[in-house]
Amino acid sequence: MKFCPACGAPVVLRKPQDDHRERYICTACAAIHYQNPRMIVGTIPEWQDGRILLCLRAIEPRRGLWTLPAGFMENDETTWQGAARETLEEANARVQVHELFGLYNMAYINQVHLLFRATLLDLDFSPGVESVEVKLFGEEEIPWEQLAFRPVRHTLENYFADRKRGQFTLHSGDLAPPVRSA
Amino acid sequence: MKFCPACGAPVVLRKPQDDHRERYICTACAAIHYQNPRMIVGTIPEWQDGRILLCLRAIEPRRGLWTLPAGFMENDETTWQGAARETLEEANARVQVHELFGLYNMAYINQVHLLFRATLLDLDFSPGVESVEVKLFGEEEIPWEQLAFRPVRHTLENYFADRKRGQFTLHSGDLAPPVRSA
Repeated sequence: MKFCPACGAPVVLRKPQDDHRERYICTACAAIHYQNPRMIVGTIPEWQDGRILLCLRAIEPRRGLWTLPAGFMENDETTWQGAARETLEEANARVQVHELFGLYNMAYINQVHLLFRATLLDLDFSPGVESVEVKLFGEEEIPWEQLAFRPVRHTLENYFADRKRGQFTLHSGDLAPPVRSA
Repeated sequence: MKFCPACGAPVVLRKPQDDHRERYICTACAAIHYQNPRMIVGTIPEWQDGRILLCLRAIEPRRGLWTLPAGFMENDETTWQGAARETLEEANARVQVHELFGLYNMAYINQVHLLFRATLLDLDFSPGVESVEVKLFGEEEIPWEQLAFRPVRHTLENYFADRKRGQFTLHSGDLAPPVRSA
């Protein structure tokens, strides 16, 4: 941020009184502009035979890899509404959203990922604009080596383990920046 | 938002291609400025005798009412770190943060409240700048009629009920705008 979104004057990075960190403050109107983490909301859409709906990404990041339907939560919606909306946008799939299942912090990119259990309501799904392909996978068919994001992998692993023991509980964790090979 | 935070030119509210809602778009550099909900993170700090730490608010909103320590999650931290930081700031209290206990959507103000169970580590607490008083309350001492926010009330009710039955589970809900008497 270089300019004040309210009045257009330059901002400076400075610690306001009684605050513990620097904020962007307008040099003209003195408005303080806070910046906060964003939520990624999505679902684990399960069909009645136990298969899970995954989307093959048509866009970066991680184009050509499989993911659970998820995306940035928007203003004016709840986490459940956001998760259902993303499922509709990415897979043209209608779901009933249940309880939160996965909470993953990715502090290095200022994101919190919230994945919800969900029941897929019908088989009338198809790729949305951000997907190349949308497909149901049984546990033994999951493309583990072609998953797009680590929260997706953790969530699917925990989901199948919990389903096996007959009880779903919330799983959470912190993810550090991925280590990339040179 | 009236001006582009990147280049200072005026923005317009317009739907980008392939998007489903209007965004602030810069008329000069074409940057799209997304606006997303914020997270409020906090704790339910329990001392070893079962009492819960509450803070009497020194500031608006809800000045003079009691609350669990909580506040806006910041960039560069996890939900747990944010919850612990808020507890330290508002009550000068050190806690060990456990699992997520309450998730409340307040879509009408673009907030998601995340309240975590926590163990209070010592009795060396005192009011932070946003608190007038900080005090431990047994279940029968909770000032139910002087609680600051609805997520605090719901969280405390669920917490005591769960503790009684010996098992904590995640509680979540959506809160509509409060009805105010004329």
